[in-house]
Amino acid sequence: MVRNKNISVIIPAAGSSARLNAGTSKQFILLDNKPLLFYSLDQFLVLDNLQEIIVVSNDISGTKSLLDNYGGDKSKIKIVAGGELRQDSVLLGFKELNPNTTLVIIHDVARPLFDLNDLEKCINCAEANGACVLACPVSDTIKKAKYDNDRLVVETTIDRRNLYAVQTPQVFQYKLLGEVYKKYCEICVDKPVVTDEAKLVELLGGKVDLVIGKRSNIKITYPEDLKLAEAILQNQKQELEIAR
Amino acid sequence: MVRNKNISVIIPAAGSSARLNAGTSKQFILLDNKPLLFYSLDQFLVLDNLQEIIVVSNDISGTKSLLDNYGGDKSKIKIVAGGELRQDSVLLGFKELNPNTTLVIIHDVARPLFDLNDLEKCINCAEANGACVLACPVSDTIKKAKYDNDRLVVETTIDRRNLYAVQTPQVFQYKLLGEVYKKYCEICVDKPVVTDEAKLVELLGGKVDLVIGKRSNIKITYPEDLKLAEAILQNQKQELEIAR
Repeated sequence: MVRNKNISVIIPAAGSSARLNAGTSKQFILLDNKPLLFYSLDQFLVLDNLQEIIVVSNDISGTKSLLDNYGGDKSKIKIVAGGELRQDSVLLGFKELNPNTTLVIIHDVARPLFDLNDLEKCINCAEANGACVLACPVSDTIKKAKYDNDRLVVETTIDRRNLYAVQTPQVFQYKLLGEVYKKYCEICVDKPVVTDEAKLVELLGGKVDLVIGKRSNIKITYPEDLKLAEAILQNQKQELEIAR
Repeated sequence: MVRNKNISVIIPAAGSSARLNAGTSKQFILLDNKPLLFYSLDQFLVLDNLQEIIVVSNDISGTKSLLDNYGGDKSKIKIVAGGELRQDSVLLGFKELNPNTTLVIIHDVARPLFDLNDLEKCINCAEANGACVLACPVSDTIKKAKYDNDRLVVETTIDRRNLYAVQTPQVFQYKLLGEVYKKYCEICVDKPVVTDEAKLVELLGGKVDLVIGKRSNIKITYPEDLKLAEAILQNQKQELEIAR
């Protein structure tokens, strides 16, 4: 495939990570003594056709200080102020993109362990079809439950067939995402609250493809996820050593 | 609490583990050189008030040979022939239970890494309320998707609020489960197909409680899950060493 593309990355890193009790934004959290943000930067910086990486933060000076200690190429990294909701932050990042961009990658800083080959598949799929997201088939039984005083009681079991747990990176054609945001910004009242940009594309009439990713691309939400991430990382390092 | 209870465990281990490409039932799969089944046996055998463990298998002689190499107490372990579906196997196991049983634990052999403290909480909750299951809040966005030729395309995004990924062990009062199975067996046509016994309880009018478990209690479904389990296990061993 002849590649005539410019890839831009938006990393929303403005969340407060309240569920981690870390007292800090997730980008600063250390995994094996390295801030979460650096994992994503390291990975994106090896992409061909990378134009820029926009880190959206509510702590601009903190993020700047953090990047002072980053050993990789900083020339393509920009810091942009975030909004109230995750989706606001991504939109603020989007507005700062170089209009030469052809593909936009949106990636949560809380997923430091995504696989570059999976990302490549996602990029190719979005290039062909418009929007593509990494996902894994759900293998647990999923139930909807509600607190009844102290008890958490099941309301219903969801049919798990055809259910996928979606991850980031999510990749979108710049043009498509621009159209989606145009419609989104025209909504004056009751703007939809979404947990990912793919949902915005779906809501506003676009199609989203899934590419099967790896379960090891976990999202660090709770303190124990950090332990799990450490374990996965150790395992990946060992495998790299064996491969050498 | 005065404990006047007899706990029995049913381990359905009759599945073919087709998604693991292991060519063998999951009970035989090695995790850190130890068969998956042994992990669960080791854990359940330390329970107070344990009456019996019923392993439901479609390979009786294979399971017998496997148990010949088990170093723990085998006097409480019974092997029972399984059925076609997972739920059939559990029912066949249930029919073989000692009627002195007051609490039944149902546990998938594919989850070797459950936590004993979480199980204790689940036992106490089921003793008080009837049925209790370990679960974790869903932190990924969940989408329903369908294959359209080679493309896997999103149909809809499920609202993840109040969604829980349920695990095993699942604990039931023997009497409640007996009533549920009585109703279930009376259904002549279109017996419901379920992915866990909690769903049967729900369908037939019972309440199911959830107790929040650990994300590290993963289900080994795909080959990469085994790698993840190895990583978790290494991490747990290291923590144990540090604690010593």
